[in-house]
Amino acid sequence: MIPPYVVLDPLLISWLQEDIGRGDRTTAGLGALVHQSCHAIWIAKAPGIIAGLPIAQRVFALLDSAAQLTPLVSEGSHCEAGTAIAEITGPLGALLTGERVALNLAMRLSGIATLTRQYVDKIVDLSAQLVDTRKTTPGLRMLEKYATRIGGARNHRLGLDDGVMVKDNHIAVAGSIEAAVTHIRQGLPYPLTIEVETESLSMVEAALAADVDIIMLDNMSLAEMATAVTRIRQIHPHVKIEASGNVTLATLRAVAETGVDYISTSAPITRSPWLDLSMRIKY
Amino acid sequence: MIPPYVVLDPLLISWLQEDIGRGDRTTAGLGALVHQSCHAIWIAKAPGIIAGLPIAQRVFALLDSAAQLTPLVSEGSHCEAGTAIAEITGPLGALLTGERVALNLAMRLSGIATLTRQYVDKIVDLSAQLVDTRKTTPGLRMLEKYATRIGGARNHRLGLDDGVMVKDNHIAVAGSIEAAVTHIRQGLPYPLTIEVETESLSMVEAALAADVDIIMLDNMSLAEMATAVTRIRQIHPHVKIEASGNVTLATLRAVAETGVDYISTSAPITRSPWLDLSMRIKY
Amino acid sequence: MIPPYVVLDPLLISWLQEDIGRGDRTTAGLGALVHQSCHAIWIAKAPGIIAGLPIAQRVFALLDSAAQLTPLVSEGSHCEAGTAIAEITGPLGALLTGERVALNLAMRLSGIATLTRQYVDKIVDLSAQLVDTRKTTPGLRMLEKYATRIGGARNHRLGLDDGVMVKDNHIAVAGSIEAAVTHIRQGLPYPLTIEVETESLSMVEAALAADVDIIMLDNMSLAEMATAVTRIRQIHPHVKIEASGNVTLATLRAVAETGVDYISTSAPITRSPWLDLSMRIKY
Amino acid sequence: MIPPYVVLDPLLISWLQEDIGRGDRTTAGLGALVHQSCHAIWIAKAPGIIAGLPIAQRVFALLDSAAQLTPLVSEGSHCEAGTAIAEITGPLGALLTGERVALNLAMRLSGIATLTRQYVDKIVDLSAQLVDTRKTTPGLRMLEKYATRIGGARNHRLGLDDGVMVKDNHIAVAGSIEAAVTHIRQGLPYPLTIEVETESLSMVEAALAADVDIIMLDNMSLAEMATAVTRIRQIHPHVKIEASGNVTLATLRAVAETGVDYISTSAPITRSPWLDLSMRIKY
Amino acid sequence: MIPPYVVLDPLLISWLQEDIGRGDRTTAGLGALVHQSCHAIWIAKAPGIIAGLPIAQRVFALLDSAAQLTPLVSEGSHCEAGTAIAEITGPLGALLTGERVALNLAMRLSGIATLTRQYVDKIVDLSAQLVDTRKTTPGLRMLEKYATRIGGARNHRLGLDDGVMVKDNHIAVAGSIEAAVTHIRQGLPYPLTIEVETESLSMVEAALAADVDIIMLDNMSLAEMATAVTRIRQIHPHVKIEASGNVTLATLRAVAETGVDYISTSAPITRSPWLDLSMRIKY
Amino acid sequence: MIPPYVVLDPLLISWLQEDIGRGDRTTAGLGALVHQSCHAIWIAKAPGIIAGLPIAQRVFALLDSAAQLTPLVSEGSHCEAGTAIAEITGPLGALLTGERVALNLAMRLSGIATLTRQYVDKIVDLSAQLVDTRKTTPGLRMLEKYATRIGGARNHRLGLDDGVMVKDNHIAVAGSIEAAVTHIRQGLPYPLTIEVETESLSMVEAALAADVDIIMLDNMSLAEMATAVTRIRQIHPHVKIEASGNVTLATLRAVAETGVDYISTSAPITRSPWLDLSMRIKY
Repeated sequence: MIPPYVVLDPLLISWLQEDIGRGDRTTAGLGALVHQSCHAIWIAKAPGIIAGLPIAQRVFALLDSAAQLTPLVSEGSHCEAGTAIAEITGPLGALLTGERVALNLAMRLSGIATLTRQYVDKIVDLSAQLVDTRKTTPGLRMLEKYATRIGGARNHRLGLDDGVMVKDNHIAVAGSIEAAVTHIRQGLPYPLTIEVETESLSMVEAALAADVDIIMLDNMSLAEMATAVTRIRQIHPHVKIEASGNVTLATLRAVAETGVDYISTSAPITRSPWLDLSMRIKY
Repeated sequence: MIPPYVVLDPLLISWLQEDIGRGDRTTAGLGALVHQSCHAIWIAKAPGIIAGLPIAQRVFALLDSAAQLTPLVSEGSHCEAGTAIAEITGPLGALLTGERVALNLAMRLSGIATLTRQYVDKIVDLSAQLVDTRKTTPGLRMLEKYATRIGGARNHRLGLDDGVMVKDNHIAVAGSIEAAVTHIRQGLPYPLTIEVETESLSMVEAALAADVDIIMLDNMSLAEMATAVTRIRQIHPHVKIEASGNVTLATLRAVAETGVDYISTSAPITRSPWLDLSMRIKY
Repeated sequence: MIPPYVVLDPLLISWLQEDIGRGDRTTAGLGALVHQSCHAIWIAKAPGIIAGLPIAQRVFALLDSAAQLTPLVSEGSHCEAGTAIAEITGPLGALLTGERVALNLAMRLSGIATLTRQYVDKIVDLSAQLVDTRKTTPGLRMLEKYATRIGGARNHRLGLDDGVMVKDNHIAVAGSIEAAVTHIRQGLPYPLTIEVETESLSMVEAALAADVDIIMLDNMSLAEMATAVTRIRQIHPHVKIEASGNVTLATLRAVAETGVDYISTSAPITRSPWLDLSMRIKY
Repeated sequence: MIPPYVVLDPLLISWLQEDIGRGDRTTAGLGALVHQSCHAIWIAKAPGIIAGLPIAQRVFALLDSAAQLTPLVSEGSHCEAGTAIAEITGPLGALLTGERVALNLAMRLSGIATLTRQYVDKIVDLSAQLVDTRKTTPGLRMLEKYATRIGGARNHRLGLDDGVMVKDNHIAVAGSIEAAVTHIRQGLPYPLTIEVETESLSMVEAALAADVDIIMLDNMSLAEMATAVTRIRQIHPHVKIEASGNVTLATLRAVAETGVDYISTSAPITRSPWLDLSMRIKY
Repeated sequence: MIPPYVVLDPLLISWLQEDIGRGDRTTAGLGALVHQSCHAIWIAKAPGIIAGLPIAQRVFALLDSAAQLTPLVSEGSHCEAGTAIAEITGPLGALLTGERVALNLAMRLSGIATLTRQYVDKIVDLSAQLVDTRKTTPGLRMLEKYATRIGGARNHRLGLDDGVMVKDNHIAVAGSIEAAVTHIRQGLPYPLTIEVETESLSMVEAALAADVDIIMLDNMSLAEMATAVTRIRQIHPHVKIEASGNVTLATLRAVAETGVDYISTSAPITRSPWLDLSMRIKY
Repeated sequence: MIPPYVVLDPLLISWLQEDIGRGDRTTAGLGALVHQSCHAIWIAKAPGIIAGLPIAQRVFALLDSAAQLTPLVSEGSHCEAGTAIAEITGPLGALLTGERVALNLAMRLSGIATLTRQYVDKIVDLSAQLVDTRKTTPGLRMLEKYATRIGGARNHRLGLDDGVMVKDNHIAVAGSIEAAVTHIRQGLPYPLTIEVETESLSMVEAALAADVDIIMLDNMSLAEMATAVTRIRQIHPHVKIEASGNVTLATLRAVAETGVDYISTSAPITRSPWLDLSMRIKY
């Protein structure tokens, strides 16, 4: 589900303003000609997973309430090159002025969903789930994480405020995992969970001792991970286990087979090319 | 040069707010410990072109006026993996809270600059210049176009308002290239230029007849492009010529050799992976 | 800890603008007289717990960088009527113009902290912790929840996005607790926890079966609560238990003695009078 | 009358954003189930004066144009516990997501109106009117003052810009009441009025000599007030007289009987508990 | 006095953003050259009253904290053509980028002050004061009214909320002056005043009967005005009298001689040319 | 064409908020009376060119979706005094509250269009076109430039980012016209043009040598201008020529006869009185 409009609209409006600036000189120059109604379709120019159509829909609606995008495929469906994925009707001017922002969003989000799906497909029969990270394009956090969900992944925390992640620097300043966790837990809204990044089995033990909710195994070897998983399950079966660090399409399945619950990677967001989409106007 | 702070700051602040939400639970949980001064460095974890350090500098300054990032390499320089590219001093809390937003920006922009440079290097001895497009991440237009400049490209127009681009749809609605151009020129701020997208030599002739400023040769073969360039130079030597469409690292040089002035491609922005950077805090 | 300035400042600025409108007619009318430096103190006019001084400090700083509030007592300390709790130095004009907004915040937050402390003191020797709710004054969520922390309570979730609370309506639409929880868990950022509101022991059993993280015992009798606690501890010792509903100063201790982990009440926020504070300027 | 939407909406939207954050995880987790139409009622759970229904109406409309709140009682009416005060129809998701913000506003405003009415009822047969002060919750000035009007009081000035209030500090810096008033009057928009706070009969005389529009009798005894009223009526019958300071339900009537025009107190805003309201969804 | 920065800055920042757009291409194109410190002066190119220097000062400070404008003449002073009115020091880039916005403001405000002074000088020895109206450029209300004050006029109400003006349409809908005033007074913040527009002596009588605070004589002949003034002074000596309608430099003095307190005209704002100012940079 | 609503609305909303402040006390005071539908017309009270009706239309629509302004004359038409130029229907309250902002905009823009037309009429049979400058009221750049277009002029650049203007200070810091142009061209978005301000024929030669797009002849005599035009046409026939400096209605035609392409003047914006318009409500 996309965020409520009351949350989404300020972003979309600011992005239309960014592109339009002081006015669409080309379209405005055509004058009354652009008030005519027209009909357009969006075509996938490469195969991939489609994401972002409900958002593109809102972009056109915010620009002109008479412009209406109707998805022709469902979010998250795989489309071959050449597929018509949406149709848009409305005044020509709105279609021309809104085209780039709407397409940029759908291309970016579909690109993310496409690469996410490739990762997810590798482990679809295993219990581990792929999760994203906070490496997202500034301003697009909600939408890029929406795209990884559409691609089949699960979201990690959305920001610094809806989950705790204790990393090496926090541990260093507090003196120990236990000290850090104790400090942080005290002032924490109580439904929030605490995750600790561990780089060794002794750190895993310390995290277990500190009674954390999630243990991240960071940059460990497959063997270390397997050992850690066994140990954690034995001591605290309800603790969630996340594997992180240099996960690739090649290594993903082996990591999942260690029995971890979650595997986090920024790749679908930081390494995905945009999916090529284009708009064709019919008269 | 980065945009003036009065223009840049609202973006940076909104991006910090996006990540922080209602507060950095982990860092805040450490209490007074995070007021201690510390020192950190940023390391390139892969080879590439560095872009965005002055922007990262401002991110930290906006978060806490006592946090200071000092670039150790100049914008646009090539760095090998392992290079220390910046150092940051300031309160530990500001470094921890601002790290992700600042790194995300620098990683994204350096990724763009890195791929741009690969394109630019192919044609560095020729007169043609690489230019970008309006396929940019919503909200990051100014910064992503800053990154292509750092990478060695030149910017195309920044938005719908600082240049005219007459495309097939505009031509169709107006009836002809000449009609479209005449319409648009009438109401145009006079320093702005008019570019027309052409897909054939007859369209090139029509564009020349309409006395446009820039002619884009869209998806033409190399032979067609060469013919078009010769014809345009003969008739209107001051008209600028842009080649566009399916430009790749493999085809770029041949396109440049047709004699065009500019070659536009969205690839450095839509197909570049982020350059991996990380922050290490020293005590 | 108060939220980072990048998050806090927009609120404080909007509140100063609300009070100032188009200008402080009285102060401005005095002209150059108000540029003189002066010194003021804030006095508690009734006994209570002081909260909000760091926020008042920022209010003055945002109005005029030369205005400086220095707390004379620490946040959360109990003060008798007549105690000087802060001193402020700076241009008279800034002190007069900022006085009301700064005092209103500190009076409201101290009022909350004061009533929170009365609740907390009732159960300070027990393991149960007092928590707040989402019944907060619109726009002041972060600050009012800051005040309950200063008063000794712990925060419940801050908004609709950093925790899941499954209530009767969600259960009704999904068909059962299990159906609701299964639905919601699927798309949930994985570090978030799921709490279910239960009104009977059979609902408690259903929540346990759905493997939720937190079980709220809503409006149960003390006996029911005790039974529920015993049952939950036996089945899922790591599940957190929250008691809610009509908690008063009179009933609080008995509720805590049932062994629940958390007791939520909106009373410190919805029923607390402001703590009376005033500013006196010295010349 | 509530403020025009162009003024009110930015507040309501910011308050919805505060609660929703990055999305209502619980409601969104139910997916398509929440699109079903439903019907709900709001019930008063305690007796009191209802205020804020037109504002709650707008909250739902801003969240989803298909959500419609219809008041079942008129603003300012007294309701017993158990009264249905409004019904809401619309998509279940909008009702669930908007419930808390809408209720928080109505509960807060009804609480204020309820206590205001108790004060007003004490003097309803006398000529004196109850007025509020600038002790209001930051961000809610317009709405809290709307609530005191609904409760039967009259508003004092809304901010620092729509009236002048000369207090001890202004007098001290100017040297005398006359000097302060003369200074201030000079630069004042001419329809604005000047009120002076007086603490003694000699200050009253000085205020009369300065030809002010309103004289506040601050913290005076009943006898002093009566004397002041007589003197002011005699000299300047058109001057308005306001009594202020430690007004309680117990002392209010006696103050009114001194013949003052207005009695100001912050109590209905700073000391009122919220009126308990709840929403019940029907299927 | 200019408005507090917390109120003024958002306007000034939005105006800088309007002019700069995505960046000052000319200045930025000069690169590091523009970091050099320089010195400039502002020259009046025509005689007039100077207004707006403190605002121009803030424009430069907001653009670059190192840029400092120092007024060389005091606000409201008359300057001959050729007078140096301010000097500015700071980085060349800030001076070039900020020049236009700062000058536009000062030229507009000085133009208003200059024409205001011409009006004021006509009646400087009489008791009537010149006042402005709500005919102001949208967005500049506070500053344009600041300029009329600098020119020697007094401000009328600043907006629809700090004063009541009952016009023909309000009277028509209410049925009579008395009905309109009674309606409006009921819900009015009590320090606000009520002004009624009258077009005849019978309307003046009705306004007196309704006990209004200010009576406007709209478009009356001099004889009618004189009669009205005599009548009002006799009945209600404390009522203020405002003359309005087609006031010109030629008619102003005669209007003032009728004995009215205030004469309102929009001319200094709606009919004043800008005062020509220019910036010269020294090296 | 007016700018897209997504760009225009934030301005119009901020201007309504400026005038309304915390509420329209007069209109609100009439209570339910103002909900009645009514009908009004706008009358031109002086002859002139009408501009801004589509903007006024949007002002009313933003205030109340039931308020509808219908233009009775087309934008840019000349109207005699007494002409009905628009009719408005809707709730009385919306018409009364929105009247001033809507009229202020239309009066200001019509005033600009009227003076622009007087200039344009002087040269309507010549090839030179009148253009505006960046001397515009802060915040109204887009609208004031819209008005000059309606009046028959053409816009110069809209801001610092959609065109380059190299002035004396830029030349001074770079060392020469050629150095400045070379510097600036390097980093410039390639569709943008470069204009150079010249004050002598030798500067014209330097500008021609630097291959600029537009040459401004600043404050030259008619003879110098004619010589410059001849020289530029001979060397670079595609270079556009702009005359600037002290252009008046008296001198304009002679300047145009020198053969320049554009004549820029700020007069229609900085020296135009507002066109008097008024609203009359019918019942």
